[in-house]
Amino acid sequence: MRIVTYQSNTGPRVAALRDGDCVDLNQADPGLPECIKKFLAMGREAVRRAQSALAHGKPIPLNQCRLLPVIPAPEKIICVGLNYADHAAETGAKPPSDPIVFNKFPTAVCGHGDDIVLPRASQQVDYEAELVVVIGKGGKNIPRAEAMSYVAGYCCGNDVSARDWQTQKPGGQWLLGKSFDTFAPIGPAMVTADELPDPSNLRIQLRLNGQVMQDSSTAQLIFSIEQLIAYVSQVCRLSPGDLLFTGTPGGVGFIRKPPVYLKPGDVVEVEIERIGVLRNRVTAE
Amino acid sequence: MRIVTYQSNTGPRVAALRDGDCVDLNQADPGLPECIKKFLAMGREAVRRAQSALAHGKPIPLNQCRLLPVIPAPEKIICVGLNYADHAAETGAKPPSDPIVFNKFPTAVCGHGDDIVLPRASQQVDYEAELVVVIGKGGKNIPRAEAMSYVAGYCCGNDVSARDWQTQKPGGQWLLGKSFDTFAPIGPAMVTADELPDPSNLRIQLRLNGQVMQDSSTAQLIFSIEQLIAYVSQVCRLSPGDLLFTGTPGGVGFIRKPPVYLKPGDVVEVEIERIGVLRNRVTAE
Repeated sequence: MRIVTYQSNTGPRVAALRDGDCVDLNQADPGLPECIKKFLAMGREAVRRAQSALAHGKPIPLNQCRLLPVIPAPEKIICVGLNYADHAAETGAKPPSDPIVFNKFPTAVCGHGDDIVLPRASQQVDYEAELVVVIGKGGKNIPRAEAMSYVAGYCCGNDVSARDWQTQKPGGQWLLGKSFDTFAPIGPAMVTADELPDPSNLRIQLRLNGQVMQDSSTAQLIFSIEQLIAYVSQVCRLSPGDLLFTGTPGGVGFIRKPPVYLKPGDVVEVEIERIGVLRNRVTAE
Repeated sequence: MRIVTYQSNTGPRVAALRDGDCVDLNQADPGLPECIKKFLAMGREAVRRAQSALAHGKPIPLNQCRLLPVIPAPEKIICVGLNYADHAAETGAKPPSDPIVFNKFPTAVCGHGDDIVLPRASQQVDYEAELVVVIGKGGKNIPRAEAMSYVAGYCCGNDVSARDWQTQKPGGQWLLGKSFDTFAPIGPAMVTADELPDPSNLRIQLRLNGQVMQDSSTAQLIFSIEQLIAYVSQVCRLSPGDLLFTGTPGGVGFIRKPPVYLKPGDVVEVEIERIGVLRNRVTAE
């Protein structure tokens, strides 16, 4: 099932896609929540109920829906650096002994079709195609063997990065360079985990104005989704709707010779096998 | 005025303190919101109305109130490193040319009287007394000259830090070492900005089991509150209830010879002149 959030007159509501239409899940089954985070907190039970709600619910044509990012206000956007063998190789870094975890502020999230806004303050904005894991039920100290039961689904993500801010500011913290508003596009929808029981060998590609810039497979992940969930949940409680950006493969812009940075008018597409295409245009602030 | 959030039967509600009692502001004036973030978003107008609500509202004895962190679920906890001249000197670092900005996950927040829980995964948990700014109305690209009008108030904070995770993990990102659950105590209440028109010369002290470990003044801040708000709001939209931990003065534990780390049973107090005392006990996970 493909889950989205759309903007209704009363606020954001959770829906699922059917034949190019959108079905409001709570309208189809009042036992399902209106809000995506409550929906995710219900776990697999919500997905089972949603399947039958989706079958009989009233369709809303997609062109009458204003889609929001599937998680409009994630509590956390957890990201992992240097997590593809091919990307670690291109940066000249050894594969790290522990995951390199950083984050984006939740205000950075945007959806499929939204603009990536180049801030006035940066001249070096880069793309990074990523598989994004959406956390379902929350938890702390999650054992690796149980980690996949905490995953609600997957979407494509673009870990947009201002390289000048990421690497040239005192203190070496990546946070601000990764957190400009609109720097966390996700979408186009969340594919529920039951449809993707094994996310460990999916082709992942990034195209800039149609040209393939990254082309790899999630088989290149150094730390698996299970390992990442177990590692981070030692530190903090994971909550429904938390996003885990799992790292980017080789081919990013700042490593190229000459470097490639995003400019107004560019169109960036992240495609992941069995998940879909996340497309965003680039504009200037 | 001293603003708190307490747990009622229906959820968290905003209140103010009067003579050691708690007054529910929405009960006293239904024109005021129940929720602290909506209260803060109303800006100075909310404070004016709350003053008269507080004068006539029905008191609830504090011992019948379960107080929560004044902002129970901040969207962002923005932190600044090496921002006191005396602390920069003790670490041997030059004062940075731009603020060193990092963050804590929102799940790290806890309140006055809550336990700081030492995680099993760290052996080097340290304290850091900090002045915490609470953002009122939200905004982006805030000019320095207007920055103080975005401040709702102030509280004490303790930027609890697992030094082994902060400094010894690959990638050098401070996030996880700063983000263990309970690592962001704030309180005891938020003092509204009208009561503290000039926060730039307040004595700040940290006591560990009664012994003074940090003793300085916010006059030692390298980057002022105005500068920090202007700097960070170039990057991301600030939202009501965002917390800005403004940095810690000299005297932290890991610099001492021998180093001092927190252990179960310790009591840590952060006192800031005209704001109050934030007290937390330390326990083991």
